Amino acid sequence: MTRVLLPWPDIAVPGELEATVWDGTGAPPPGLDDVEFYVLPYDRGAEPPKLIPRLPSLRVVQTLSAGYDNLLPLLPEGVLLANGRGLHDLSVAEHTLALILAAQRDMPRWFAQQRVGSWDREHTRSLADSRVLLVGYGSIGKAIERYLVAGEAEVVPVASSAREGVHGIDELPRLLPTADIVVLVLPDTPATRGVLGAGELAALPDAALVVNVGRGTAVDTDALTAEVAAGRLRAAIDVVDPEPLPSDHPLWTLEGAVITPHIGGGSASFHPRAQRLVERQLAHFAKDETLENVVR
Amino acid sequence: MTRVLLPWPDIAVPGELEATVWDGTGAPPPGLDDVEFYVLPYDRGAEPPKLIPRLPSLRVVQTLSAGYDNLLPLLPEGVLLANGRGLHDLSVAEHTLALILAAQRDMPRWFAQQRVGSWDREHTRSLADSRVLLVGYGSIGKAIERYLVAGEAEVVPVASSAREGVHGIDELPRLLPTADIVVLVLPDTPATRGVLGAGELAALPDAALVVNVGRGTAVDTDALTAEVAAGRLRAAIDVVDPEPLPSDHPLWTLEGAVITPHIGGGSASFHPRAQRLVERQLAHFAKDETLENVVR
Repeated sequence: MTRVLLPWPDIAVPGELEATVWDGTGAPPPGLDDVEFYVLPYDRGAEPPKLIPRLPSLRVVQTLSAGYDNLLPLLPEGVLLANGRGLHDLSVAEHTLALILAAQRDMPRWFAQQRVGSWDREHTRSLADSRVLLVGYGSIGKAIERYLVAGEAEVVPVASSAREGVHGIDELPRLLPTADIVVLVLPDTPATRGVLGAGELAALPDAALVVNVGRGTAVDTDALTAEVAAGRLRAAIDVVDPEPLPSDHPLWTLEGAVITPHIGGGSASFHPRAQRLVERQLAHFAKDETLENVVR
Repeated sequence: MTRVLLPWPDIAVPGELEATVWDGTGAPPPGLDDVEFYVLPYDRGAEPPKLIPRLPSLRVVQTLSAGYDNLLPLLPEGVLLANGRGLHDLSVAEHTLALILAAQRDMPRWFAQQRVGSWDREHTRSLADSRVLLVGYGSIGKAIERYLVAGEAEVVPVASSAREGVHGIDELPRLLPTADIVVLVLPDTPATRGVLGAGELAALPDAALVVNVGRGTAVDTDALTAEVAAGRLRAAIDVVDPEPLPSDHPLWTLEGAVITPHIGGGSASFHPRAQRLVERQLAHFAKDETLENVVR
């Protein structure tokens, strides 16, 4: 019998395979020497990857994250690695809208008023008619764009290089002064680090909103903190450099800052999509078919 | 010269007309006896309507609200009334999404954590894959639907009577048990009062989210408060019965309740749309053309 190690029960497993479940918390269960296919528990820290080199029969590692750089040093020669490309797109896009709308519609103010029972009213900003630079135009960026178009915002897509209808990132100096909102959806690579440094932030118009849902390193945290502290820019971020943001960091309590703890990808919409991917992969594996999303 | 009374400056006024500006705060300016066209200041309470019967030359009242029942008793015989149909659609739709996403993505929790600098993380609900009953399927409902479709929610439109692809409100008893989220976008009429009473709320599944952005009278506030207090239902509401919600009302501080003070229509997206309508109406008026949105 071929054994597969899965992060949750209720996954349809082909008859040729036998499943063991480990959710990534506590010690791994015994009897894993015959595990050939390991689906890493999602978002459970450093322990699940450490199991990889301890599985002698391993042939496939399936991660449910899009990123996999941290796994490469642990992956034995000849073991396939498949990633979770696409599983988080909608969850991240949805959280991006939650951040933008919270900032534009003053949700922190209403929640503060709620605690004291105040019906004080004031008109707010809007997303509609806003000019949104969407920096990072992969599958998550396109899911965000569908939301922005529904809300009648003006979307200006920006990618690493220009193509039909898409600006190149080298055009940012010209584009930044025209933006009401900048959304960053960038991976962490040498090219994306510090894309918004002090100079780029200074080029944004007064009261512009900086939204980061990719990786924290794309924005200079000190420079952003200074701009928000001065009341010149606003920020709505799910990622930051460093993570976790130290509890005494001044950005936490600035008026004009909305901060969530890197939970963009971790919502219920992930689960059914991950389940479907794992079930497809197990079916491919049982029939010796080519796997999807193989990255190494 | 024909005088028009406008709520803000910078409105393009045809050469035939002379403009006076009153924003609805403080006393009205003097010299209004020749005002023929009065654009009511928006969302300024009871004083602006009271001016209507005091304008002896009045021919047209333009309100920027969709509702106008409160103006009818004040309107002299022969004076035309035009309303602000459509001006608020996008603003209300956007705020509806802000409420839904705040509830589904636990924004009150993250904002509370922000005050104490906590990076505590947990997965959340999602809007994607949720089944949303959209009760009220006029122009605002359709604007909300565009957002929901972008977010891959399942939309179930419900209107006062059934038609192709739209359920009738008499089907609610059958539909409510299937809903993850119910969005109410209803005007205040005898037929819509108490659409969600204690029995209808009891028919919703555990943890369902009740969203009200139309008029507060559509939901039985006591029944909703009891369900949320019991932890059985969640609520995200911009309108409530009564308004303002008294500051000591128990609903304010319930976990599972998100409350904003009827600000759905009052955002920046309203202003340019209102400006364009007023400018078109003044042009029609100057040329003796038929006005838009005439309701009496």
